[in-house]
Amino acid sequence: MINKATEVFVSRGYDGTSMDTVARELGITKSAIYHHVKSKEELLHLAINRGISALDSAVEDERQRTGLTALERLRAAVHASVVILIEYHHSVTLLLRVRGNSDVEREALEQRRKIDDKIRALVAEAIGEGGLRSDFTPGLITRLLFGMVNSITEWYRPSYPVDPEAIADAVTSMAFNGLEA
Amino acid sequence: MINKATEVFVSRGYDGTSMDTVARELGITKSAIYHHVKSKEELLHLAINRGISALDSAVEDERQRTGLTALERLRAAVHASVVILIEYHHSVTLLLRVRGNSDVEREALEQRRKIDDKIRALVAEAIGEGGLRSDFTPGLITRLLFGMVNSITEWYRPSYPVDPEAIADAVTSMAFNGLEA
Repeated sequence: MINKATEVFVSRGYDGTSMDTVARELGITKSAIYHHVKSKEELLHLAINRGISALDSAVEDERQRTGLTALERLRAAVHASVVILIEYHHSVTLLLRVRGNSDVEREALEQRRKIDDKIRALVAEAIGEGGLRSDFTPGLITRLLFGMVNSITEWYRPSYPVDPEAIADAVTSMAFNGLEA
Repeated sequence: MINKATEVFVSRGYDGTSMDTVARELGITKSAIYHHVKSKEELLHLAINRGISALDSAVEDERQRTGLTALERLRAAVHASVVILIEYHHSVTLLLRVRGNSDVEREALEQRRKIDDKIRALVAEAIGEGGLRSDFTPGLITRLLFGMVNSITEWYRPSYPVDPEAIADAVTSMAFNGLEA
């Protein structure tokens, strides 16, 4: 149910979608939905939460790995973020559109900010270790890096003829090693 | 007038903004606006057109420069795109939000597609010349490159403490040479 509801919110826009529309698109009654969730906002929370939880645990796992340089952990965290963004495509798209218009949206923005902070700390650590170039601030590097990662939500469709691992390889390879031959 | 109207469309959303609201925000009467434009859609056209014309001529100029490799011309086109995106920040933000809901929006999408095609052709040429790595398709490279460039609209504000040229340097340097030290 959550998967399909997430898709409906993405394609029709959350604000403009009523629970009647969600029920119709899911092919069930509104009372069947209210058996599971109290409100449209709770449904949004569940829809966003899948992607953000997966993102947060992936970043956290890579960040805490021992025996690796900060650059290696950052690279693994970016790679994992791309794979999860593709796997939880609709959920992450919804997350990236949130503007803070309700408690659920504000909580999602706060979780996003915490993930950004973890990445920025890894970037700073990698600069400190001499693994990353030091001519740009950790803030600017993090923004450009995740600008590229997040933009995948705008064109990725399951029909895209490159598999998720290959897209993640392309993103990390381009970001860390550059496009020049 | 166009500048301020563009800002209003960006901050309030085009669909949800009436000409009454635009007039109020501009501090002029609605008939003063209608003295210059026939409709809200014509205002959208003018608002979007500033950014897209500037982008198109910059990309076209760099693309046609003689005596340079395709890689050099591509690099210059990306650099110029970033500077223009920052200079015409609101206009480009509006352009990137367009979904094709009217003739004006469809025309803007078509112009965007033509610019993308020019960039993709430059990428393909640079791969052919051996200047760019050949392990990714021109389509994927173009998408990731402009994913990073376009994402700047989401966080850039005139108060951001790095100047436009430095941001353009960071983007091109990261994309072409990579982040690794």
